Amino acid sequence: MTDDIGAFVRGPRVRIEGRPGGPLQGLTFAAKDLFDVAGVPTGGGNHDWPTGRPVPTGNAWAVQTLLDAGATLIGKTITDEVSLGILGENAFDGTPVNVRAPGRVPGGSSSGSAAAVAAGLCDTALGTDTGGSVRVPSSFCGLYGIRPTHGRLDVTGMLPQAPTSDTTGWFAQYAVTFAKVSSVLLSETIPTALPTKLPDKLIVAVDAFGFADANVATALQPMVKRLAALVGSSREEIMAPQGLSVWARAQRSLQPVEAYATFKDWLDKGNPRFAFSVAKALVMGSMTPQVDQTWAALMRQEVRSRMKYLLPAGTILCLPTTPFPAPLTGQPLSVLDQLRDRITCLCAHGGLAGHPQVNIPGTTVDGLPIGLSIIGARGSDATLVAVAQALEKVS
Amino acid sequence: MTDDIGAFVRGPRVRIEGRPGGPLQGLTFAAKDLFDVAGVPTGGGNHDWPTGRPVPTGNAWAVQTLLDAGATLIGKTITDEVSLGILGENAFDGTPVNVRAPGRVPGGSSSGSAAAVAAGLCDTALGTDTGGSVRVPSSFCGLYGIRPTHGRLDVTGMLPQAPTSDTTGWFAQYAVTFAKVSSVLLSETIPTALPTKLPDKLIVAVDAFGFADANVATALQPMVKRLAALVGSSREEIMAPQGLSVWARAQRSLQPVEAYATFKDWLDKGNPRFAFSVAKALVMGSMTPQVDQTWAALMRQEVRSRMKYLLPAGTILCLPTTPFPAPLTGQPLSVLDQLRDRITCLCAHGGLAGHPQVNIPGTTVDGLPIGLSIIGARGSDATLVAVAQALEKVS
Repeated sequence: MTDDIGAFVRGPRVRIEGRPGGPLQGLTFAAKDLFDVAGVPTGGGNHDWPTGRPVPTGNAWAVQTLLDAGATLIGKTITDEVSLGILGENAFDGTPVNVRAPGRVPGGSSSGSAAAVAAGLCDTALGTDTGGSVRVPSSFCGLYGIRPTHGRLDVTGMLPQAPTSDTTGWFAQYAVTFAKVSSVLLSETIPTALPTKLPDKLIVAVDAFGFADANVATALQPMVKRLAALVGSSREEIMAPQGLSVWARAQRSLQPVEAYATFKDWLDKGNPRFAFSVAKALVMGSMTPQVDQTWAALMRQEVRSRMKYLLPAGTILCLPTTPFPAPLTGQPLSVLDQLRDRITCLCAHGGLAGHPQVNIPGTTVDGLPIGLSIIGARGSDATLVAVAQALEKVS
Repeated sequence: MTDDIGAFVRGPRVRIEGRPGGPLQGLTFAAKDLFDVAGVPTGGGNHDWPTGRPVPTGNAWAVQTLLDAGATLIGKTITDEVSLGILGENAFDGTPVNVRAPGRVPGGSSSGSAAAVAAGLCDTALGTDTGGSVRVPSSFCGLYGIRPTHGRLDVTGMLPQAPTSDTTGWFAQYAVTFAKVSSVLLSETIPTALPTKLPDKLIVAVDAFGFADANVATALQPMVKRLAALVGSSREEIMAPQGLSVWARAQRSLQPVEAYATFKDWLDKGNPRFAFSVAKALVMGSMTPQVDQTWAALMRQEVRSRMKYLLPAGTILCLPTTPFPAPLTGQPLSVLDQLRDRITCLCAHGGLAGHPQVNIPGTTVDGLPIGLSIIGARGSDATLVAVAQALEKVS
């Protein structure tokens, strides 16, 4: 299979046939280059990461689980360097083409996985989501994508970034594929779309819709209406009474600190090469004052409390996954930093509270995909997937 | 000519014959890849620097001046990225071999120029010195090296870093070559070694000798004695009454800020790739508090006043060029940062006050070269070169 969209890592393409007879037999998948594949160096999107590290002797849990279920691995995909990035422009490996939004970024850090699925090069693909790295590219590329409940999946063989926020996620172009893959990785049957199995309360996060670009909020309204019809009742609520920007600030006072701690020894011993923006994020992580970290840890408790209160079993919340569709490629950092900060306002709850979130594609703004997200109680991952699948059939 | 020491930039080697009949006819030189050579992209030690920039159509002033004087250019040499570095380890281009201290760094940022001259691949080589980038490699590689009076030479075609500290410098293995090249680049006759033309007062900077490693101070004593004999009188003085570390702090509160200003637009638009240490220096430059900058500017005035007071015409000051000989290659950043900070204590006066300084080789510690520096009044560059040349003949 050709890769004229630059989604796969350079060099010989890895391929491992899935075990015959499994539920995913006949499907193909790709793995973000943060997941170990036996015999293949894990690149992590950074040319100095593999240096001096042993080549993995086993597959990451998520890779092995898909193989065991019958899916065939067809390659490893480009990622933002050590998953630090939200737009998908890798200064060393290039920017995978977003076939749904030409000339625009695919979103990151799971850029190649999203781009490959959007281009039809594979049926599904593994990504990781710490601060939005599955949610954002699924919104920008018009895909189903999930950030599961934090801590639910085995992350063995997945390159960590900020462990208290890191999750394994995946993409699919079609709801039926998404449900099949989700069932395998969640080890849970996806509920059928009987009303009794679905949530009966929908919260519309008015602050999040108000924060998104006006045309994004408008474009998502028909999806929100269909979702409300599916669920049966809806109400408006403020998701973040303290402010979405306050939640974002808390996340940005915790995640880079953890990322710096993860990579500190490597930075010291290897002085690795990075794009300036990535190095800057790590430096900032090394310099976050303790007073900010302490405050952010307290705010995280408040966010967890708020999300738990909003989302008892049977309730889901919807919000725009991203405040805008995919930005143009090649913009200056001064512009990208502002875009990233706005994205973080809608994504920070994920890393802070760890609730599961599913991006549902289905609409566009000026021809560019934009996703609607649903969030549920911790552990309600399968229910969210069921809602996404059921929504496809609601007109 | 082979380059098995990795001193020259990759790719076809540039060569331009010197004009016949000049005073440097028969000599060869190399130019740090911060100097423009017509028709050759200036690399600046960073693989993203040349991108989108026009290829130079003329030679840098220093290159043209040497060509006009008859020297032949035989190549461009490796430098620390955009001259930000003092040890000479470039994560993209490698570390030029210091033939005088195998397994140890050549010093930077003019690493390739010093390494090439030390290995006998050329007679002289152009470098730049902002915070020590000629002085340090000349000490580590056992070479004559000069940081001229700031503002004296035309810097046209030289990639800037921190313009209020940037200077053009050069290296040579032999005093006679050093004097010839210096005469050309300074556009001044080097005084003959008649006592009447040489300084008659020598200051021994006791704080600087006390700051250096004890075995370095000891190893330099015979040279100091010969120098005192040559000059005729000597006295001990504290160079930096405020503290060498205070001077270093001032320099580190000014130079990275200027460097960031120099490269800011490029960073923003290009998001270039750097070693982590280089990106970190730029980030720190972008974050230096105004209160520190303001203080450092005042301290710079004090340093200028002190150096002017210490160094009237006819007086020179000597100090160890570096506190230790060349460190081992491949050490962790946590170690290198401490080494750099100590080096800065002995070098900061150069950027702050702009007096000329010449490194004189001639001794070793455990077989590793270490240099003695002499500093004079602003404009006394030729006198310093004459002293260096005369000292060779004093036993």
